[in-house]
Amino acid sequence: MTRKIDIFDTTLRDGEQSPGASMNTEEKLVIARQLLRLGVDVIEAGFPISSPGDFESVRRISELAGDNAVVCALTRAVDKDIEVAADALRYAKRPRIHTGIGVSPSHLRDKLRIDEDTCVERAVHAVSFAKTFVDDVQFYAEDAGRSDYDFLVRVIQAVVDAGATVVNIPDTTGYSLPEEFGARIAYLMDNVRGIEDVTVAVHCHNDLGMATALAMAGVRCGARQIECTINGLGERAGNTAMEEVVMAIAMHGPELDAHTDVNTREFTKASRLVSSITGMNVQANKAIVGANAFAHSSGIHQDGVLKKRDTYEIIDPADVGAGESQIVLTARSGHAALRHRLEELGYELEGEELDRIYEAFLELADKKKEVYDEDLESLVNERDREQTALYSLEGVQVSCGFPLKPTATVTLRGPEGDLSTVCEWGTGPVDAVYKAIDKVVQVRCDLSEFAVQSVTRGIDALGEVTVRVKAGGGEVFTGRGADGDIIVSSAKAYLNALNRLLTTAR
Amino acid sequence: MTRKIDIFDTTLRDGEQSPGASMNTEEKLVIARQLLRLGVDVIEAGFPISSPGDFESVRRISELAGDNAVVCALTRAVDKDIEVAADALRYAKRPRIHTGIGVSPSHLRDKLRIDEDTCVERAVHAVSFAKTFVDDVQFYAEDAGRSDYDFLVRVIQAVVDAGATVVNIPDTTGYSLPEEFGARIAYLMDNVRGIEDVTVAVHCHNDLGMATALAMAGVRCGARQIECTINGLGERAGNTAMEEVVMAIAMHGPELDAHTDVNTREFTKASRLVSSITGMNVQANKAIVGANAFAHSSGIHQDGVLKKRDTYEIIDPADVGAGESQIVLTARSGHAALRHRLEELGYELEGEELDRIYEAFLELADKKKEVYDEDLESLVNERDREQTALYSLEGVQVSCGFPLKPTATVTLRGPEGDLSTVCEWGTGPVDAVYKAIDKVVQVRCDLSEFAVQSVTRGIDALGEVTVRVKAGGGEVFTGRGADGDIIVSSAKAYLNALNRLLTTAR
Repeated sequence: MTRKIDIFDTTLRDGEQSPGASMNTEEKLVIARQLLRLGVDVIEAGFPISSPGDFESVRRISELAGDNAVVCALTRAVDKDIEVAADALRYAKRPRIHTGIGVSPSHLRDKLRIDEDTCVERAVHAVSFAKTFVDDVQFYAEDAGRSDYDFLVRVIQAVVDAGATVVNIPDTTGYSLPEEFGARIAYLMDNVRGIEDVTVAVHCHNDLGMATALAMAGVRCGARQIECTINGLGERAGNTAMEEVVMAIAMHGPELDAHTDVNTREFTKASRLVSSITGMNVQANKAIVGANAFAHSSGIHQDGVLKKRDTYEIIDPADVGAGESQIVLTARSGHAALRHRLEELGYELEGEELDRIYEAFLELADKKKEVYDEDLESLVNERDREQTALYSLEGVQVSCGFPLKPTATVTLRGPEGDLSTVCEWGTGPVDAVYKAIDKVVQVRCDLSEFAVQSVTRGIDALGEVTVRVKAGGGEVFTGRGADGDIIVSSAKAYLNALNRLLTTAR
Repeated sequence: MTRKIDIFDTTLRDGEQSPGASMNTEEKLVIARQLLRLGVDVIEAGFPISSPGDFESVRRISELAGDNAVVCALTRAVDKDIEVAADALRYAKRPRIHTGIGVSPSHLRDKLRIDEDTCVERAVHAVSFAKTFVDDVQFYAEDAGRSDYDFLVRVIQAVVDAGATVVNIPDTTGYSLPEEFGARIAYLMDNVRGIEDVTVAVHCHNDLGMATALAMAGVRCGARQIECTINGLGERAGNTAMEEVVMAIAMHGPELDAHTDVNTREFTKASRLVSSITGMNVQANKAIVGANAFAHSSGIHQDGVLKKRDTYEIIDPADVGAGESQIVLTARSGHAALRHRLEELGYELEGEELDRIYEAFLELADKKKEVYDEDLESLVNERDREQTALYSLEGVQVSCGFPLKPTATVTLRGPEGDLSTVCEWGTGPVDAVYKAIDKVVQVRCDLSEFAVQSVTRGIDALGEVTVRVKAGGGEVFTGRGADGDIIVSSAKAYLNALNRLLTTAR
């Protein structure tokens, strides 16, 4: 039997740190359910001290996961952080506190402004203090990829002696080459006493496009846990993509003495779900989950694949859930069928909530012949957005084209229940609608991105619009809206972003 | 001085093989100009036998490149292919023929259905035959990543003896791990006589997300040429991304004894240009050129970066041309300013052509206050599309919103100059417009993708729509349209895709 490699998902923590990818608690729970279906070993659910939302997410995911996954909460090497994390984890069956400190010369000198002795002292204290709350304590040595080899050994030795169960070696800046990073892990394996009794983890960034290769090099040299995210989300260029590293281990297990327990058939669904919830689209040439990952266009390749699949294809698309036949609902599908399908997608709805979605579903099924999983996800996400809105869209009416002056009339319901109707013209219909909304919701911000994706196939597909607006202070807010009418989706998305901005500002 | 690594760009050949990314000759020339500005060593301009368009692209890029880059044309190990490639290259100052054959057991047995002796014979013949036309002959050993070590040595020895100047070792299926692939290159360096007198090249695919790391492993073990594409475009999950591998060499040159001569400050522009022309969007968490590549969102990271940039950032964004101040034109900018800016963007326009673009520019500048580079690119691309159209859009008028039935009236000019006006209603305004167009242009196809990107900042940005339609035979056609009005862009994009489909079918 090969070594079992633990898959530690940090989509909900490092992934959420992608600019514009912030999620609310309900959205995080939907993703957490999908992570459980994937069978990941550890879910890093948030950084509880950083916000009430993160605290709540860790608490609710702790309840959700039960025995099925370790739930992990991030902290700095600060007592208050650790106390709050322990509190958020109190309902977890298998809680883990993830604490740590910077260890590179750059971090010691320029960020923390401490010397090496103080660094070791704080590291040991944080681990010992965390151990008073939970047995399972993971330590991260931030910026380990640029640290001095022997100082890294010293820090890791100290925290292992203090009782850390997992030691995480991050290449925080995505600076390393795979061989160098592997050599660093090998050096720890050779020089830290008792390292064989703890789990060594790797956490790699993609700044040079090598996050997956870095993690693989770590596994080859002794690591037994990989930190990763769905679609490779994360700070800057992101983290190791779970789907890539798990499939690479699946292809090369014997050479690496490694396997994982992830259910790879859930990857395509997981990728779509995370992309839809965060509004972070996946490019067509993304490995494993991109739209073209298994598409052959050149005649030579097509000829080869038709003769025998493996001339040009190493992975069977079905193994990652790509191109699987989608269950399709129609206007004749009942309440029970809808509820069952929603449950399989990770949404648990009852009573009135289910009734409202069922009504919206019937309305959509009436327009389209077939309703796909992605349509259902959009409907549910749309409802979540509407429930928390300060301003809601009561009506919009647009005329545009050429030669014509695009004109929009918008009716909004405000926080006090008051209705406002305004009209504006603009360079295009979206511009006109947004100007009209701006007239009512008076908030200073810039639109920094606008994108539309058809969420399903066909000409009558539901269009999902993602917008990003930048507030005065530089914070980015993402808004999404879905409707069969792209102009209505655009209005909803913009309003969603403004609502998020206003809610946060309060 | 470290080893100079040649950068061989194949955006116009393997990149164009991305499903839906096909380009016409004018578009390829625009990209080729950008490749020259980047200072790449070799431009693979096409596969001349495959289509008249590829032949023409190789011919015109040969003229364009002059002494500034080697121009390379792909062939199979087939005499006719090589003759046609030589013909296409006849105006090149520095021509290279790239010929080769599959060498893995899978390719020999299932695709070519030949034995090893025949394979070696064909390889040697192809190289010798190509040498009768040009001095510079590159041989590719297709699927080398899965080939037998000693058979690979035998093939490479034979083609080196036959006069190949470059030997290309592709990991065609993206199957390898970096260490294995590096070991394979090292084995060739150790076992092929005279290998030090030729250039060893690597061509890696991204199926497991490791194309960049594979190329880096090749360089470490002796390769002196990297085949790559802008944005990592290419078959399936794509190729090594030029921007990633060049920046990785820039960061780690001394350790690898390597440098390149690429002008990295052109990367951001190159990425945007290729994305706009092919309609293949780049995800936000793409290394080097993604929208978030240099964005920090967590408080801890922001704090660190403010204290000292390199606590979390290894590359200065300015080194890759990110966030550079854009030259902005306004309604007061004259002909000369517009022509100058277009030239810098790679478009050389004169006389009437320039006048037409200037008119469109003034119209846009009138609506928007500031016209950015991306707006200009869209205007020029839009003009190229209109010039080759069978059907053109003469007018469109839409009313939509809720509660309303989205309705569109479309006027098209047909191939014979005849005008047709039709109206339709649909689930949304785009659906209604497309149904109306379908009524006039009667062609069987499915819409497989619909996406909108704002090409510039701000609420009045020009919206560029990309659609992909699948024809009856499974071929994918990409259409693009740009206009300040998203519904007009959508109509133009769909019509562009249908025009391409009809032109190809003829």
